[in-house]
Amino acid sequence: MKKIAVGQAGGPTSVINTSLVGFLEEIDVEVFGVINGFQGLVEGNLTHINEQKKKEINQFRKIPGACLGAGRYTLSEENKVEAIRVLQKKDIHCLVFIGGNGTASALYKLSETAKELNYELQVIGIPKTVDNDIYGMDHAPGFASAARYVATSVRDINQDLKSMRNFEQVRIIETMGRHSGWLAAASGLLKINKNAGPQAICLPEQQLKIENILENIKEIVSQNGFATIVVSEGIKIKDNNFEEKMSVKGRTVLGGVSSGIANRVKKELGFVAREEVLGMNQRSSQLTISLQDLEESYQVGQKAAWLVREEVTNVMVGIHRKERNSYQYFLSEVPLQKIYTSGESHLPKLFLEDFDAYYKWLSPLVGNDLQSYPEIFI
Amino acid sequence: MKKIAVGQAGGPTSVINTSLVGFLEEIDVEVFGVINGFQGLVEGNLTHINEQKKKEINQFRKIPGACLGAGRYTLSEENKVEAIRVLQKKDIHCLVFIGGNGTASALYKLSETAKELNYELQVIGIPKTVDNDIYGMDHAPGFASAARYVATSVRDINQDLKSMRNFEQVRIIETMGRHSGWLAAASGLLKINKNAGPQAICLPEQQLKIENILENIKEIVSQNGFATIVVSEGIKIKDNNFEEKMSVKGRTVLGGVSSGIANRVKKELGFVAREEVLGMNQRSSQLTISLQDLEESYQVGQKAAWLVREEVTNVMVGIHRKERNSYQYFLSEVPLQKIYTSGESHLPKLFLEDFDAYYKWLSPLVGNDLQSYPEIFI
Repeated sequence: MKKIAVGQAGGPTSVINTSLVGFLEEIDVEVFGVINGFQGLVEGNLTHINEQKKKEINQFRKIPGACLGAGRYTLSEENKVEAIRVLQKKDIHCLVFIGGNGTASALYKLSETAKELNYELQVIGIPKTVDNDIYGMDHAPGFASAARYVATSVRDINQDLKSMRNFEQVRIIETMGRHSGWLAAASGLLKINKNAGPQAICLPEQQLKIENILENIKEIVSQNGFATIVVSEGIKIKDNNFEEKMSVKGRTVLGGVSSGIANRVKKELGFVAREEVLGMNQRSSQLTISLQDLEESYQVGQKAAWLVREEVTNVMVGIHRKERNSYQYFLSEVPLQKIYTSGESHLPKLFLEDFDAYYKWLSPLVGNDLQSYPEIFI
Repeated sequence: MKKIAVGQAGGPTSVINTSLVGFLEEIDVEVFGVINGFQGLVEGNLTHINEQKKKEINQFRKIPGACLGAGRYTLSEENKVEAIRVLQKKDIHCLVFIGGNGTASALYKLSETAKELNYELQVIGIPKTVDNDIYGMDHAPGFASAARYVATSVRDINQDLKSMRNFEQVRIIETMGRHSGWLAAASGLLKINKNAGPQAICLPEQQLKIENILENIKEIVSQNGFATIVVSEGIKIKDNNFEEKMSVKGRTVLGGVSSGIANRVKKELGFVAREEVLGMNQRSSQLTISLQDLEESYQVGQKAAWLVREEVTNVMVGIHRKERNSYQYFLSEVPLQKIYTSGESHLPKLFLEDFDAYYKWLSPLVGNDLQSYPEIFI
């Protein structure tokens, strides 16, 4: 009888557990849960998912965070062999992980290591990301809910600033998005017209100069009275290395670019400015889970279970969009090797040059129930 | 025919416009809107609220931020006289402002100035605050929605940390609350048991030492694997002046205490720690507006209109609770002088010593529809 190990890796999302539940509800063979991501795999931290555990996991269906434990962990050569040994000891020949780009790459490498060791191993990825940077798919679960959080938060923080404009003129709002601007660009989804906030959005895909950003802010405040500026944590600014803040276990943790810019605004433009880091709520807010995201995250989990049964290997489930006027999608399989070799997916040129086209694409994912505020000054 | 001026002052809330709409819908005399708070009053920035304007304002009924413009402004002796002159010029003998402690004091002082100038002036306050620090009432509109944001955010950020505990151990979450801990303490509302996060809450009402905070965090991490710590922006820490961050127009803007503590945790305890400042979303998030808060904010506006008609003066509308097992309340009038002379209302000893009693008090305001997460480790 086949045995499976399933785990969660990387930064969690608000719907990563939904995918786990979707997977487990379709699986009818013995399953082990990997605790704490790839580190748990290497250390042999596996738990048998019996009926009781399945019921417990089911309670997390609509709860953010990774209920198995996730965490970030880079697999060394030695660790990859160790991971295969752990699976071998339990006679597990199928490994399923819910994760993003890093997870797809780790799964691909593990399958290569297994080949070298002559160990038969089926590997399947279930996508999750808030950055929406997984190659080869239209989008991935977790992103739409994060985008919903960003779009509503920026709408509200802009409205708050508008009402305080005689006291405070500039807010620099920082979103997640290590290498791609999908999430930062989502901040303008609920703008009712071009003049409404956020009046500027800075993306990692752009070549930015601090002088131009400051000049732009000055211009916006002089025309508008205040300026709501959104920056992705991953933007690269020429002449200023705002990028690195702290390094955790060899991985750079971003954040802090907003306070760098806000300080320059205060010093050089003389405006009252404040940074707002949207923080972990972006990936973990339960109240902003998108219903479409919830449904799709369940379905990619289900689909992974079917792929296990069909003996498909070395793929991650993907979501693709049909070319229709209304939103329709289908699930497919994206080769892990493709994801590994292609790197992060960026905001395409079409969207960079036409945010309205991007918002048309984004709207059905985030949900059409959100209000745009009227741009009236009483 | 009587004429009225109505304004909004101080940091806005997510329901401050609801009170304005409630007020305007009950008023049948000529009304002028004061633009940008007390600064607008001094500068004569008043707009006639005709039927068209009323319709426009009605659109902001459930929209955060102050639609008239609010802002912070300290009235000097000269400015107070100037404000009365502005009213006199337009023959306005009734001034209504939606605000907190500062607004109540400003209204009181303006009525004293009017007396000195022999100018007949009725003054009425409509309460709003996210800090819940207005003296003489059970609570005030705006607080419950902010508490709802804090309680759900901390629940979610804790769940996120729990799933990342092998990578990151400590989060220091900073809430608003300049002098009182109502909002910070609300962060534990959805804890399912004592061990669940947030494992510690630091309040301005407490005497705190950084050494004790660090020791406590060390203890929590060693027992629990991770620690979610909530701190109010206004906490006073002995030996460390974390308090002042920046000063805007003579008023200290708080914030930054969380990064101070997170840095000490990293340096002295060696844990991976991150600060999370909940920021303006606390007072401006539309998606976390409490329905009870929305209803009450409308009613205090209505009530102010009735007080105008009844020629009552020098009071702020208050919300009081009946001593019953179920939540029942009534509206009353609190003398402005009392609010002015009493200073901020703090979290009472009863609640400081028994958070469960506080949560029982808080729950009907925030809403009973929110989920507590199970404290299960898979």
